[in-house]
Amino acid sequence: MAKRRIGILTGGGDCPGLNPAIRGAVLHSSAHGAESIGIRNGWKGLIESDARVLRLNDVAEIVVKGGTILGTSRTNPYKKENGPAHVMSTMKKLKLDALIVMGGEDTLGVASKLFEEHKAPVIGVPKTMDNDLSATEYTFGFDTAVTVATDAAERLRDTGRSHGRIMVLEVMGRHAGWVALFTGIAAAADYVCLPERPVDVKDMAAKLKAAYARNGTALVVASEAITLPGVHAHHKEIDDFGHEILKERGVAERLSEAIHKETGVETRAAVIGHIQRGGPPTIFDRILGTRAGVKASELALLGHFGYMVALKADKIVPVSLKEATADLKTVNLEWLDLLDTLTSALAGETNRRVKALKTGV
Amino acid sequence: MAKRRIGILTGGGDCPGLNPAIRGAVLHSSAHGAESIGIRNGWKGLIESDARVLRLNDVAEIVVKGGTILGTSRTNPYKKENGPAHVMSTMKKLKLDALIVMGGEDTLGVASKLFEEHKAPVIGVPKTMDNDLSATEYTFGFDTAVTVATDAAERLRDTGRSHGRIMVLEVMGRHAGWVALFTGIAAAADYVCLPERPVDVKDMAAKLKAAYARNGTALVVASEAITLPGVHAHHKEIDDFGHEILKERGVAERLSEAIHKETGVETRAAVIGHIQRGGPPTIFDRILGTRAGVKASELALLGHFGYMVALKADKIVPVSLKEATADLKTVNLEWLDLLDTLTSALAGETNRRVKALKTGV
Amino acid sequence: MAKRRIGILTGGGDCPGLNPAIRGAVLHSSAHGAESIGIRNGWKGLIESDARVLRLNDVAEIVVKGGTILGTSRTNPYKKENGPAHVMSTMKKLKLDALIVMGGEDTLGVASKLFEEHKAPVIGVPKTMDNDLSATEYTFGFDTAVTVATDAAERLRDTGRSHGRIMVLEVMGRHAGWVALFTGIAAAADYVCLPERPVDVKDMAAKLKAAYARNGTALVVASEAITLPGVHAHHKEIDDFGHEILKERGVAERLSEAIHKETGVETRAAVIGHIQRGGPPTIFDRILGTRAGVKASELALLGHFGYMVALKADKIVPVSLKEATADLKTVNLEWLDLLDTLTSALAGETNRRVKALKTGV
Amino acid sequence: MAKRRIGILTGGGDCPGLNPAIRGAVLHSSAHGAESIGIRNGWKGLIESDARVLRLNDVAEIVVKGGTILGTSRTNPYKKENGPAHVMSTMKKLKLDALIVMGGEDTLGVASKLFEEHKAPVIGVPKTMDNDLSATEYTFGFDTAVTVATDAAERLRDTGRSHGRIMVLEVMGRHAGWVALFTGIAAAADYVCLPERPVDVKDMAAKLKAAYARNGTALVVASEAITLPGVHAHHKEIDDFGHEILKERGVAERLSEAIHKETGVETRAAVIGHIQRGGPPTIFDRILGTRAGVKASELALLGHFGYMVALKADKIVPVSLKEATADLKTVNLEWLDLLDTLTSALAGETNRRVKALKTGV
Repeated sequence: MAKRRIGILTGGGDCPGLNPAIRGAVLHSSAHGAESIGIRNGWKGLIESDARVLRLNDVAEIVVKGGTILGTSRTNPYKKENGPAHVMSTMKKLKLDALIVMGGEDTLGVASKLFEEHKAPVIGVPKTMDNDLSATEYTFGFDTAVTVATDAAERLRDTGRSHGRIMVLEVMGRHAGWVALFTGIAAAADYVCLPERPVDVKDMAAKLKAAYARNGTALVVASEAITLPGVHAHHKEIDDFGHEILKERGVAERLSEAIHKETGVETRAAVIGHIQRGGPPTIFDRILGTRAGVKASELALLGHFGYMVALKADKIVPVSLKEATADLKTVNLEWLDLLDTLTSALAGETNRRVKALKTGV
Repeated sequence: MAKRRIGILTGGGDCPGLNPAIRGAVLHSSAHGAESIGIRNGWKGLIESDARVLRLNDVAEIVVKGGTILGTSRTNPYKKENGPAHVMSTMKKLKLDALIVMGGEDTLGVASKLFEEHKAPVIGVPKTMDNDLSATEYTFGFDTAVTVATDAAERLRDTGRSHGRIMVLEVMGRHAGWVALFTGIAAAADYVCLPERPVDVKDMAAKLKAAYARNGTALVVASEAITLPGVHAHHKEIDDFGHEILKERGVAERLSEAIHKETGVETRAAVIGHIQRGGPPTIFDRILGTRAGVKASELALLGHFGYMVALKADKIVPVSLKEATADLKTVNLEWLDLLDTLTSALAGETNRRVKALKTGV
Repeated sequence: MAKRRIGILTGGGDCPGLNPAIRGAVLHSSAHGAESIGIRNGWKGLIESDARVLRLNDVAEIVVKGGTILGTSRTNPYKKENGPAHVMSTMKKLKLDALIVMGGEDTLGVASKLFEEHKAPVIGVPKTMDNDLSATEYTFGFDTAVTVATDAAERLRDTGRSHGRIMVLEVMGRHAGWVALFTGIAAAADYVCLPERPVDVKDMAAKLKAAYARNGTALVVASEAITLPGVHAHHKEIDDFGHEILKERGVAERLSEAIHKETGVETRAAVIGHIQRGGPPTIFDRILGTRAGVKASELALLGHFGYMVALKADKIVPVSLKEATADLKTVNLEWLDLLDTLTSALAGETNRRVKALKTGV
Repeated sequence: MAKRRIGILTGGGDCPGLNPAIRGAVLHSSAHGAESIGIRNGWKGLIESDARVLRLNDVAEIVVKGGTILGTSRTNPYKKENGPAHVMSTMKKLKLDALIVMGGEDTLGVASKLFEEHKAPVIGVPKTMDNDLSATEYTFGFDTAVTVATDAAERLRDTGRSHGRIMVLEVMGRHAGWVALFTGIAAAADYVCLPERPVDVKDMAAKLKAAYARNGTALVVASEAITLPGVHAHHKEIDDFGHEILKERGVAERLSEAIHKETGVETRAAVIGHIQRGGPPTIFDRILGTRAGVKASELALLGHFGYMVALKADKIVPVSLKEATADLKTVNLEWLDLLDTLTSALAGETNRRVKALKTGV
C-alpha cells in the first residue's frame, strides 16, 4: 500500500516557531508511516507545483532555527485567475492526502475557503507574532518577539539612565497591543501605548515625570499602530487581511516629540522593526510549535479536515477553521486594568479600587 | 485610617520569577493604598520578626532579577517548638492584615495548616522549578530552568558532534520529569530519561545507535532522579517534603557507562546543578510571576484567605490551599506518547499507531 | 594624614564598559587607601559641583551593568563662560588630588587642554563604541556594540531567507567603519559598506546576486555614514567633535532601494540605533574596562598626569593625552583586503592575488 | 594548470572558533583560486585517507557554529606504527600542496616534527580554550569559554544571595588559570583560585567573610587543577601533552568543604564541565578565528611552511612552529597583582602599595 502523503506549507510573514511546527508534523507523520511533502513559498508553491519530500535530516534539528525552511510568500490563490483550481489540481498531482497550512489570518482564510468550497483536506496551524487570534490562547512567535523586544527595552533603559533621557521603543502590533503589553510588563516600562485605546498624553506625561523624578529616566513601549490625539497625519493603509489600519509613519518619533513637549525631558526613540522577526525560537515557542505540528499531523492522519489546532488550557485542541479566523483578539479590560495598576503604582499613585474578584488575569 | 499591611515571604529553594511576583504584589498593594512588609528568609523571618517595609524603589525594576530579594530558608515552624504560635504572634506584632506566602509544597503546606488551625490570613503563590504541582498549569521558574538546560544541551551537542560522542545532560526533577521532557523536546534530544518510568536500556541504545549512525552524535537528557534497571546502588533519601526519593548518586555518570556499554560509542556526561536555579527570568516567568503576585495582593485586599493562585486556561484563579498542595503532577501518558513519537521518528522507526483523537497535547 | 581623593567623571555618549572602568578605578584606589569621588554627568558635574563619595557597595557588582552609574553629558567647559576656571575651582573645592576622565575625543580633548593650560591633574580613559581612536588597539564598548549588531544581523538573515529577500542592517560608525566591518565578518555578511570608501553599487549588486542565487537571501551591513554615488541628498552635519560628516538621512532605506533597483530582488532594511548602546558589557569589554580603570587609578596615585591609558600588545600603557586624541583610526588597507577576500569568495570569485607577506591582519 | 590543493585538519579537544578558522582558510584559498580539502577527525583522517573537498556552501555560514565541521580526534601519528610515513603518503595521495593544522600543543607538536623530520608543508593554527600558549596573546575559544563560565557564575550568585550561601564555580584550566582569572574579574568574584599558586585558605576565608558580611553571599571561581594545602588526596595524571598534572578529584567539592569549615557559612559548588566547550563563538573568537584561518591560507599559498599564526599587537603574524609550542603561558605576576588588588578592595582591605609604573596590565 502506498504511503500516505501529507503536504505542509507556510504562508504570510515568517516567525519563530514555524520550523518546530514543521518538524513536529514531519516527525509525527514519519513515526506513523506517512510521508511529508514540503511545499515551497506558501500557496505560491501549490500553484507552481514547487515541492519536495521532507526527509528526517531535513528537519531533525530545525527546532532551534528561526524562520521557515519551506520559505513563505503572501501569494493568495483567490487573487489569481483560476488560483483555487490550480491549487486543487496541484494537490491531486502531488498525490496529497492532506495539507497542513501554517499561517496567519490570510493564509488560513484561504485554507478555510478551499475546505468550504472544494472540500480540500486541510488542517490549519495558526501563526502570528501579534498573538491576535481569538481562537487560541497563544500563538508561537509571540514569546520570541516579546523576548527580543524586552532585551532591546532593557538596553534602552541603560542608555536612558546614563543620559537622563526618556526612551521610547516602538514594537510590532498592527491590530492588537499584545507585544507592547507583554514587553512593557517584562521590561518594567513606565508607560505602554496600545492600539486598543488612544494615547492619553496628559496621563502619560504625569506618569513619566513621576518615574523620571524617582529614577532619572523613564521607559515607554508603544505599538506601531497607536493613535495620538491631535496628530492628523494618519496614513491609511489596507493590510494583507483587508483590515484598514491607521498607521502613523514614525510613531516612535511623534511620540517622542509629544513626550518632550509635555515633560521637558530629552526623549529618544528606537524602532525594532524586522529584527524582531528572526532568531532562534524561545522554549515556549519551540514547545508550542512542536505540539501544534504534531497535532496537525494527527488530525491529518485521522482525516479530520477543516480544523485549526489551538492552545486551550494547556491542551492542543481542534477548532473549526471557519470560526478560528473570524475574530481578532485585542487586549481586554482585565489586562488593561493590570497594566494600569502597575504603571499607576510605579508613578506613586495610590488610589485605585480593587476590582471585582470574579475576573482573573 | 491606618494603611492595610500585607506581609510577603518567600520560602524553600529560590527560583526565577519570585522577584516579579514580589514586585507584582507590592505594586498592586501600593496602587490600592496598602503597604507591603517584606519578611526576610521565609518562615524564619516570621519567627525572628525580621521584616521591613518594601518601598517602590526596592521593587520597581526587580522583574529582571533572578532569586528573591527577600531571601529564603527551609525553616519549618512546625518543626520548631511553639513555631506556629510564634508565627501568629509575630504577624500580630507586625500588624499584618494578610500574608502572601510564596513557596513550594513545604512552604505552602505550612501556610495551609496555619490557615486551618489558626485562621491565619494567608494567600499562597506556588513556586517550583520542577513544575510538579497539579493545581496549576505552570509555575514560574520552570520556563527559565528549561531555557538554561536547553542552552547547555545545545552546547553539548556541538562538542559531541565534533568528537563523535554521545552526550548526556542531567537536569533537575526530583519527582517529576517535566524539566527533562521540555528540555529534550526543545533541544531535539534523541532520548529522554524520566523519573516516571524506568529507563529501558535496550530501547534507548537502539535509538541512540540510529541517531549516531545518521548524525555522528546523539544527545540524552535525563532527570536527576531516574532509575536504571540492574543498578542497585540506589541512594534512598527523604526530601524536604517528606517524599521518599530513590536517587542515584551520579545519574549522569552511570547512564553514560550504561550507554557506552550498550552502544560501544564514547559517551560523556554533564550535570547542570545549581547553575539552573539563577539568572534573569524568561518573559514567560516574568509575566506569570507578575500576574501571580498581583492576584495574590488582590485576594489579600479582598480578604479571601486560604487560597493559592493558579494558572488555568490563561487566567490566574484562586484554588483552595488545602487541595492545591495535595497532588504531585507527573508527566502523563499524553506527553509520554508525544515524546515517544518524536524519538521514534528521530530513530527512523515508522510503525506507531495514531492515538485516539479525544486527547490533546 | 588625609586620604588622597581621586575624582572620576564620564562624558559624551554612554557605552558598555564604563561601569567596569569606574569600578576598576574605585577598587584600585580603595585598595591603596585613597578615596573616590564620583562626579555627576561629565564636565557638567564639575561646573556645578555635583559629586559624591563612591563607596564599595556603589561599585562592587557594576561590572555587569551597561551605561554609567555616574551619568554623562555633552557639556564642554570650553563652550561655557569661564568654564575652565569653574572646573579648576570645583576641583580645588572638592579637594581632588587627581581626576580620571572617561570619554571620547571631545571629553578627552577638554582634559588635554586643562592639563596643558591649567596643569590640571588629569588622566584619560578612552571610550568610543566606534573604536576609531588611533592611540589604542581597542576601546571598550566596541565589542559589545558588535555583539548586539551581529545578533540583529543573524535575526535578519532568518527572515530574509524565509521570504527570499535581501536584508540591509545599518549600524553605528560616524567616521570609521569598524562596527560594520566586524559585524559583517562575524555575521557572514555578503557585502559591507564602510564610510572609508564610496559604495561601488555595481560590485555590490554582482556579489549580492551571486549570494542570492546560492542561498536564497543575502545580507548587507552598512555604516550609518556611508556615501552612495549618484545620491546627492547628503545631509551635512558638524558633529560634537568639530568634524564635518556627510550623513545620508536614512542610509539603510536608500541603500535598499539601490539594491532592489540593481538586483531586482525585494530588499528590506533595519536600523539598530540606540539599542546598540546599552546592555551588559561583553567579557572583552568588562576585562578591558577593568584594566583601564585600574591603570588610570595607578597613574593618578603615582602622579603621572596628562596621560591616557591605551591597549597595546595586550598591555595597558600610558600615552600622552595630546597625541592620543590627535588622529582618527579608520579601517586600513589590510582590513579592506581581508573583507574583500571574504566577500569575493562568498560570491564565487576566484581571481584575487595573494598579498605581500609582510603585512598582517 | 591544476588548482593548488590546501588540506585542513582540526585535532585535540574541539573549541569555538575552529569553524570560523576553517571558513577563513577556505574562503581565502577559494578567492585565490585554490581548493580546500577537509581532512576528517584530525591526524586520524590523514592516516586513514578520510577527506573531501570543501565547497563554498560547506563553510559559508559556519562562522556562527561551535565545534568543528571536520571532526576531531586525539590520534597522534607518532604513537602509531609508521604513523608519520602514513601521513606523508596520504598527503601525497591527496595531492596536497600544503596542510593547515589547527590544534593545541599535541596536534601542533606533531606538525612541527613532521616539518622538521619530513619537510611536510604545514602551517599551524593554535587552539586552546585555556589560552596557555606563550607565542600568541590570545587563542580563539578562550573568550567564549569565559563568557559561558561568567554566565554560570552570575546565576550562582543569584541563588547564593537568596539562600545566604557562598558559591563555588569550578572552571577549566589544567595548567594555567586564565579562564578562572578572567571569569573571576568579569563576574566580580570575591576570590579566585588558580593553579599558579597554592590556595591560601586563611586569606580566602578572611576575604569571603568580609564579602559575606557586606553582601549576604560570596562567590569563588576556581580552576579545575588547583592545589589545596593539607589535602593529600591528589590524583596524579599524565595528560595528552606529556605534562604531569596534580588533579584533585572534585576540586569544587573539597574547596566548598574547606570554605564551610573556615567561615561557618553554608557553601555550595557547581562544575561547568563540558558545557563550556560548545556553543556559538563570541565575536572576539569569530574575528580571531577568521583572521587566523585567512593568514594560514596566505602562508600556505606563499609556501611559507613550518610556521604557526599568532596574535601579536592586534596583527596576525607567523611564528616558528618549533618555538611556538615550547612554552606554557601561565598567569603572571602583573595579573596576580591586579587580581589581588580587586579582591583586597572588595574585602575592604586598604593597605596595598602602588606597584612600579613600568609594568602594564
